Amino acid sequence: MGTVVALGGQVGGAKLADGLHRLRGRDLAFIVNTGDDYEHLGLSFSPDLDTALYTLAGIASASAGWEPEGETRALSTMLKRLSGLEQPPIGDRALAATLLRTQGLAAGRRLTEITLDFCRHLGIEARVLPMSDDPVRTHVLTDEGAIPFPEYFGQLGCEPRARGLEYAGADQARISDEVLDALHAADLEAVVLCPSNPFHGIGPILEISGMRELLRKRGAPVIAVTPIVGGKALKGSAGKMMRELGKEPSARSVAAHYLRLIDGFVLDQEDAQLVEGVRSLGMDVLAAPTVMRNAEDRIALARKVLEFARSVRERKALEVE
Amino acid sequence: MGTVVALGGQVGGAKLADGLHRLRGRDLAFIVNTGDDYEHLGLSFSPDLDTALYTLAGIASASAGWEPEGETRALSTMLKRLSGLEQPPIGDRALAATLLRTQGLAAGRRLTEITLDFCRHLGIEARVLPMSDDPVRTHVLTDEGAIPFPEYFGQLGCEPRARGLEYAGADQARISDEVLDALHAADLEAVVLCPSNPFHGIGPILEISGMRELLRKRGAPVIAVTPIVGGKALKGSAGKMMRELGKEPSARSVAAHYLRLIDGFVLDQEDAQLVEGVRSLGMDVLAAPTVMRNAEDRIALARKVLEFARSVRERKALEVE
Repeated sequence: MGTVVALGGQVGGAKLADGLHRLRGRDLAFIVNTGDDYEHLGLSFSPDLDTALYTLAGIASASAGWEPEGETRALSTMLKRLSGLEQPPIGDRALAATLLRTQGLAAGRRLTEITLDFCRHLGIEARVLPMSDDPVRTHVLTDEGAIPFPEYFGQLGCEPRARGLEYAGADQARISDEVLDALHAADLEAVVLCPSNPFHGIGPILEISGMRELLRKRGAPVIAVTPIVGGKALKGSAGKMMRELGKEPSARSVAAHYLRLIDGFVLDQEDAQLVEGVRSLGMDVLAAPTVMRNAEDRIALARKVLEFARSVRERKALEVE
Repeated sequence: MGTVVALGGQVGGAKLADGLHRLRGRDLAFIVNTGDDYEHLGLSFSPDLDTALYTLAGIASASAGWEPEGETRALSTMLKRLSGLEQPPIGDRALAATLLRTQGLAAGRRLTEITLDFCRHLGIEARVLPMSDDPVRTHVLTDEGAIPFPEYFGQLGCEPRARGLEYAGADQARISDEVLDALHAADLEAVVLCPSNPFHGIGPILEISGMRELLRKRGAPVIAVTPIVGGKALKGSAGKMMRELGKEPSARSVAAHYLRLIDGFVLDQEDAQLVEGVRSLGMDVLAAPTVMRNAEDRIALARKVLEFARSVRERKALEVE
């Protein structure tokens, strides 16, 4: 068995990464979207990184996977009282990572170093890696202008119609040594695009200069897992955004979105009728249960994805011969 | 009735200020020690200011008056876990003022403006005023060197023997316009030194250049209330520090410490036998119940202090005639 690199963001991405982590431990590197990072009250928030950390550490809330179990809101209540202003909700537990990150960045440390320290203290064997140490900011392009994703999602509830996305800073952002090392590994077995929103979960990672080429560099199979089941995103905004961007909200659209990057695509068993259509795009396809309700589901899907990657690798090897 | 200016820090100081506030509302200005302010995790902590705010707003904990009622420690627990380090305890509620203060200072606002905003949002009629907008830092001089007071008190539990104190920055700190206005008020009726530690509660305020002169400028009586009852500080470190600094830990020592600044001294009824000794220092003396267990005690003491101030003022007026 070799090493595995997963890419993703949000709760769905973290869940599959958790399954992979439970199977492979230190042989997993999880490259996480930072396009949703934002500043508030002078502090550096990294929602997708923190979701990944809580999930892989086994301390994420079962009902609100982006925050620690048992989260409380005492700080937020007091912030509102003292400022007289509505404030974006900040969890008391969740603020710890934000404070330490802000302090570390102010002291000149890289986001990657800070995040790897969190992994160590939380007992996470895998490497949770920010997609870059340089800032990238996802904006949703709307009729009212470009809106930072956290504002679009948080304050505006994904209301404005999406006309497109832009990833400010992605063309200047450098790939960190840690991400390079993970994707250069001689024993790289598979690259997995987790079931995250293709536009603001996986998209920002792929837009970093050189990232697409790097993902394919070692020749390991690149496998994507659908975030859309039966025409609906499991959580969040993927379905709505796809429609507004003129795409059919389906697993097939997601597969088409990743064309020329991925070798194989995993769609949900509920969408098995789409297998042939996706295969006709020129990629391997697997139908499997992709809905992860508990740890067993995560492990089962991770296992299927890795088995699928192996079969794709073997088929590619035959083709070369 | 005119206006009243109180000086103090810590819980004892805030309690008497609360009594004065309940009697006089907007006619009170409370000048608060900032010599215990410190930076941690890149944030600006002002413990005495926050104690004053919570107390005057009626939201201070009954058992731990320096923090809001119902305080929780979710953030601290998570900070320790994520950093692997012991961290000074930070309350979830209390962090709100610290975050907003840090952000305000970073935006170039003065500590006084920020604090007055807090007063407004908390419904405090009085003006709670930092002793200066410039940093002053109280150090305890020990055999191991000069130790910042928060470290001496918090991490070291007041263990090291105190050889003296220094107030770094006090000679350069400017008196703010708001403090000047309060002490220049034509209707200034009394200046009250609250029952705070004379060394690190009241001391830093008095060390600011020009403050002593300013306190006496309008000729209003300056009255101090003892923080020592029966040879013991009610809370905290005053008794121990006095002994180590070669002073008898008694109300009389406190009165002597304020010689040439104050016109009258309030000691506890339990120390009534000290009245003559303190009077012989050359000041008016009142014995009264100074232990404040509830709001009624605070109001009763505040009323006695203001009546005492009036009698001192009348006696001074007679002397002049």
